[in-house]
Amino acid sequence: MKTSAGRYFEDFRLGEHIVHATPRTLTDGDIALSTALYGSRFALTSGATFAEALGLRQLPVDPLLTFHVVFGKTVPDISINAVANLGYAGGRFGVPVLPGDTVTATSEVIGLKANRDGRTGTVYVRSQGRNQRDEVVLDYVRWVMVNKAEPHETAEAPVVPELPGAVPAGDLHVPITVPVDYAARLAPLAGSAQLFEDYEVGERIDHVDGMTVEEAEHMLATRLYQNTAKVHFNQLAQADSRFGRRLVYGGHIISMARALSFNGLQNALWVAAINAGTHANPTFAGDTIHAWSEVLERLDLPGRTDVGALRLRTVATKNHPCGDFPLRGEDGRYRPEVVLDLDYTVLIPRG
Amino acid sequence: MKTSAGRYFEDFRLGEHIVHATPRTLTDGDIALSTALYGSRFALTSGATFAEALGLRQLPVDPLLTFHVVFGKTVPDISINAVANLGYAGGRFGVPVLPGDTVTATSEVIGLKANRDGRTGTVYVRSQGRNQRDEVVLDYVRWVMVNKAEPHETAEAPVVPELPGAVPAGDLHVPITVPVDYAARLAPLAGSAQLFEDYEVGERIDHVDGMTVEEAEHMLATRLYQNTAKVHFNQLAQADSRFGRRLVYGGHIISMARALSFNGLQNALWVAAINAGTHANPTFAGDTIHAWSEVLERLDLPGRTDVGALRLRTVATKNHPCGDFPLRGEDGRYRPEVVLDLDYTVLIPRG
Amino acid sequence: MKTSAGRYFEDFRLGEHIVHATPRTLTDGDIALSTALYGSRFALTSGATFAEALGLRQLPVDPLLTFHVVFGKTVPDISINAVANLGYAGGRFGVPVLPGDTVTATSEVIGLKANRDGRTGTVYVRSQGRNQRDEVVLDYVRWVMVNKAEPHETAEAPVVPELPGAVPAGDLHVPITVPVDYAARLAPLAGSAQLFEDYEVGERIDHVDGMTVEEAEHMLATRLYQNTAKVHFNQLAQADSRFGRRLVYGGHIISMARALSFNGLQNALWVAAINAGTHANPTFAGDTIHAWSEVLERLDLPGRTDVGALRLRTVATKNHPCGDFPLRGEDGRYRPEVVLDLDYTVLIPRG
Repeated sequence: MKTSAGRYFEDFRLGEHIVHATPRTLTDGDIALSTALYGSRFALTSGATFAEALGLRQLPVDPLLTFHVVFGKTVPDISINAVANLGYAGGRFGVPVLPGDTVTATSEVIGLKANRDGRTGTVYVRSQGRNQRDEVVLDYVRWVMVNKAEPHETAEAPVVPELPGAVPAGDLHVPITVPVDYAARLAPLAGSAQLFEDYEVGERIDHVDGMTVEEAEHMLATRLYQNTAKVHFNQLAQADSRFGRRLVYGGHIISMARALSFNGLQNALWVAAINAGTHANPTFAGDTIHAWSEVLERLDLPGRTDVGALRLRTVATKNHPCGDFPLRGEDGRYRPEVVLDLDYTVLIPRG
Repeated sequence: MKTSAGRYFEDFRLGEHIVHATPRTLTDGDIALSTALYGSRFALTSGATFAEALGLRQLPVDPLLTFHVVFGKTVPDISINAVANLGYAGGRFGVPVLPGDTVTATSEVIGLKANRDGRTGTVYVRSQGRNQRDEVVLDYVRWVMVNKAEPHETAEAPVVPELPGAVPAGDLHVPITVPVDYAARLAPLAGSAQLFEDYEVGERIDHVDGMTVEEAEHMLATRLYQNTAKVHFNQLAQADSRFGRRLVYGGHIISMARALSFNGLQNALWVAAINAGTHANPTFAGDTIHAWSEVLERLDLPGRTDVGALRLRTVATKNHPCGDFPLRGEDGRYRPEVVLDLDYTVLIPRG
Repeated sequence: MKTSAGRYFEDFRLGEHIVHATPRTLTDGDIALSTALYGSRFALTSGATFAEALGLRQLPVDPLLTFHVVFGKTVPDISINAVANLGYAGGRFGVPVLPGDTVTATSEVIGLKANRDGRTGTVYVRSQGRNQRDEVVLDYVRWVMVNKAEPHETAEAPVVPELPGAVPAGDLHVPITVPVDYAARLAPLAGSAQLFEDYEVGERIDHVDGMTVEEAEHMLATRLYQNTAKVHFNQLAQADSRFGRRLVYGGHIISMARALSFNGLQNALWVAAINAGTHANPTFAGDTIHAWSEVLERLDLPGRTDVGALRLRTVATKNHPCGDFPLRGEDGRYRPEVVLDLDYTVLIPRG
């Protein structure tokens, strides 16, 4: 067969190392498209002068764009026959991707667990993105429920890996150095005087603004990431699905929520880790996305007095402003308007 | 409050100097997106070889893209609570923005006038965009009607600044030098033999072509400019507005009209000034935009025999071809199909 | 007249040489947009490291993007008053366009044949795109049926040029050198082990995936190419056409089909020729495109053992998956779901 149908559950081998196609050079063009798609205003990924003032050689690629590109590469091999994207864990960003860098991705199968139904199983992979110098730009664990090619019982004992928790402060890669006059000189350009010390654990922020998503937008984004998951693109096939519609790529919502979070987290300049994430409900074109955040932890970084980290939960909703901070209902389940529950860590200058 | 609600009328102080977030590096990516959004064919902003033949170091950013980016930066501080964008005046483009340049914006409050209703007032600002060498790339005056946070009478005497008229010929920044063989060698590449001397004051040109605007397009554009005005993005909120729809950013119509004006103004290579502008009626997705232009003035440039300037009025309409040059009705008001009345100045080679 | 209405049949002269406006610099921004519009995953036009391993100086522009840009330049002069785009022949790509290169286009009128109806005629042109060093990047013949300005009989004898057939192997420009360890080192990154020898003449491949097209997408694409054909952009005018809708630019379908063809033709790294092509039926926004391919010829390249060529037919359909390889009905006509029948030649490493 010339055409790849993707792997089914029985095609995965524990410990297998998968090289994903296709190498992807990220450029100023991708940065501009990312701005057009999300309108992010975080200064470190918007202005080269700002990035240089924090010690970077040039304007870096937004870590979430790096995430989408690495994730997209894994789709044809890992999740093209997935029933559900069950979770992420331990996502750690490495050296920043700079325009001109070429990213490739690999995955290692770290767990396999057949389901009792005989039709599906859970595949756990650890995926890595690397640049042309073989430096790690992103490392994360993902697990997905994948169809079997044929229903049957699986003889092998299940192997469920120990999932990493939130990336510890000492493991975060910190690519920036914050100058001593940041508060006076750079914070106004970043859009707020609120720095590390101004955020309290447990504090919740309604990001206020809403943004409606269109079919053309989420498809442009998902193709930009060379993500080939059929559910995002093929209305003819989706018309017969249980939703009847194309599904918006979950990562598109992550980037929308991050862009909306600027209003309240202006100095949260850099996403350093994605600790965990759940796409709680599907999003469709026409939905309007809002977001709110909670400060989960305030992390000192070893040996650093210039910059700290905040571990955040950012929740995105559809067609529901976030003044009431919606999350779970009384039954413990995500409320129907919640589309994303993301646990991640950002770098933020200290005052 | 971590979240900015933007300024209300009573938050502005006369003479106040506002530094806007976020620095923005403009690149080849932004130029490509601008082409995809408007399809402009003016040679000076399309071909590097053409730009170099006119003395520029590299392909420059379209002045209107510079305008949108500077304008976008001012929105969160100036007009996020605006009822209406009342006008522009004295917009003068400075040194061209080249790919790689980083633009920042500041505004000075130059006028404040409370309205008798006790609920709103007019704020006049002079905004500037500067590059990383602190050179001015754009300077313009804008005034907007802004809500008060609380209805109340205002004690201060109104201050209404003297508004600048059209930018005089001597104040125009002319970044190009036109070679003597332009008509023979470059005009064919620009698409027309019609040069400065071929345009007569009072002459009107129907630009013939029409272009329909989609939701995804105007939102991509407005996010590219990091313009956060809520009315463009949030269908959930707009459903309850008097229009029931998202509004297209007025600047999107300016760029559409400029691109359409190529057919008839092919050698109008560079926008040097925006003298005044009115967004006469709102535009919505699905509307088809046409445009016509009138030559208001033919301006000799001091000491220059290679290049002149035309002061133009370009009018854009929705769902109405411009063969009848629509503008105002018998009551003196803009006709309902007119969405833009723009007074601006272009540079055009002399024959 | 300042406004160009384009040429009518009687405005063309045999042997005439037409210089098209506007020079166009292609950049990383155009490459990123092309990825966002089509999601192509062919490694040679995605990763700079891959392109460099095959001897290119940097990541090249996709030849189809070059085609669209050259084609777009010819539209205002050749086909703005066309009734139908009748065919392409002998399209040969020359030196690759690299980011930063500026493309200009010219056409020579090589045939003219008035139709008996007295209202239309066929115009044959040979068009060339060249870079800033005057090197040919694309050379192809196109013929279109064009309206006359006024119905009348034409005195001149018809001149119908001999149309070139498929570009012979010896005339193909081969810009790549395939390293000896390609199969081991690079094929996995390209996404498949299937090389030149693995494809048989007559073999047919269903590319499986489908992609739905939106109005915003095809208009963004067509403007990116500065293609001004009215039927793609003006819903107000199209509402009165026989379709009642905007038509999707045929080239947009070519690029969608090429991107879909990755699944089955992963190592078909470079389009070297467009031998012939028919836009069999119109495509509209909302249509879902699928594609299948047939291997027409396997071509040895003179003096080359590293790389061969496949002459392919790729057929695209609307709203019809391609498992049944649809093409023509019993009446010999294209089936109504077929929108593209493209004959082209790709370069593919030998094993």
